[in-house]
Amino acid sequence: MVKRLEIAAIEGIPEIVPGDDLAGLIFDACEAEYPLQQGDVLVVSQKVVSKAENRIVKVDPDDPLSHKPLVVSEAKRVLRRRGDLIITETKHGFICANAGIDRSNVAPDVAALLPEDSDRSARRIRDAVTHRVGAPVAVIVADTFGRPWRRGVTDIALGCAGILPILDLRGTPDALGRIMHVTEVCIVDELAGAAELIRGKSTGVAVAVVRGVDPQWFGPGSVAEDVVRHHDGDLFR
Amino acid sequence: MVKRLEIAAIEGIPEIVPGDDLAGLIFDACEAEYPLQQGDVLVVSQKVVSKAENRIVKVDPDDPLSHKPLVVSEAKRVLRRRGDLIITETKHGFICANAGIDRSNVAPDVAALLPEDSDRSARRIRDAVTHRVGAPVAVIVADTFGRPWRRGVTDIALGCAGILPILDLRGTPDALGRIMHVTEVCIVDELAGAAELIRGKSTGVAVAVVRGVDPQWFGPGSVAEDVVRHHDGDLFR
Repeated sequence: MVKRLEIAAIEGIPEIVPGDDLAGLIFDACEAEYPLQQGDVLVVSQKVVSKAENRIVKVDPDDPLSHKPLVVSEAKRVLRRRGDLIITETKHGFICANAGIDRSNVAPDVAALLPEDSDRSARRIRDAVTHRVGAPVAVIVADTFGRPWRRGVTDIALGCAGILPILDLRGTPDALGRIMHVTEVCIVDELAGAAELIRGKSTGVAVAVVRGVDPQWFGPGSVAEDVVRHHDGDLFR
Repeated sequence: MVKRLEIAAIEGIPEIVPGDDLAGLIFDACEAEYPLQQGDVLVVSQKVVSKAENRIVKVDPDDPLSHKPLVVSEAKRVLRRRGDLIITETKHGFICANAGIDRSNVAPDVAALLPEDSDRSARRIRDAVTHRVGAPVAVIVADTFGRPWRRGVTDIALGCAGILPILDLRGTPDALGRIMHVTEVCIVDELAGAAELIRGKSTGVAVAVVRGVDPQWFGPGSVAEDVVRHHDGDLFR
């Protein structure tokens, strides 16, 4: 029996507006298409979380740069600028373009800010969906970031609940019995990226479900505490 | 019908030694467990590619740092050092710890170097496996890299063949009809990370198959040409 993971795109989630019961809408959409099971990992787009939490601001629809002043006010620090590109450190500690503010998949006259606390957002969705399913599921809130040194963006985890953000393999043997010293795998980032492959950018699929992850990966932790690297551990800020 | 991806772990690939017909061994292992189909993406661990290509050097098994002099000679540049940690730029243009040299999943008296040209390695495997399958498959050679700003490692693509490394969505509409300006998604890195979720680090599963990717993603390109960001486009070197 081959070990396998399945990643399913959940369509049927309506356009989200502030105050929507996002967890309920996600549960209902899954129920209709792909009923959730114990151990499923839901990967939810930051954009719908920001919309549900009213992290939306007005911008001039005719000016593609009208959100730029917000970038500077939302950022904790501006790290680099080149032309219109502003690389920022957000108050959450994320290093990303434009303080995470963006205008894709929102109406032309608004921009979406990052959630205040994406781990908390993930916990709320996890708690509500777990209650509806009657068995534990995990939740990742995902966003799209660029990287230094490599072209193209990938999805990463802004927040998580119910899943270990980092799988700590230090001290476990590799396939040849050698003890591994420094292998801590950021599984929530890999799960976010995997989900992006099926969610896509232009298709408006806000949620994907990853089924088949190792049950030992379920546990406590948060992106803010466990994944964000702080200044003193960072060599490239 | 829910759109889905499946990622399968291919076990049964024997310990690889220099000169092995890696593509043939991969094909045979897949045939036994999970017969390949047109459009499958094989994600192959760098470690088995390096072993098959004899990118193996002797080190002192009793000294966990005996590969460090190699790091300096393999690297094009050393970017940062902190204690035993050496962040390097390799001759391929990759920014990673220890010039990509590592000692996990190899015998205690050797270390594995990166393949000379992982895109070429991927092409060779792709060509041979495609011939055996009788229909096109794609291949990614994956390795595990750390990141600045975020803790934990993730798998990324060192090389690829038969799949577009970057999906260029610039100029296509998002879900609300807005034209996206800067969305180029590095799907080969997301695929490498997704495969890591099932391959794991300690289980010695050298290959995973991703099934169900969009047929439009098949096409030309290489990691070296399309993903590696060059000095003049980089803000953090």
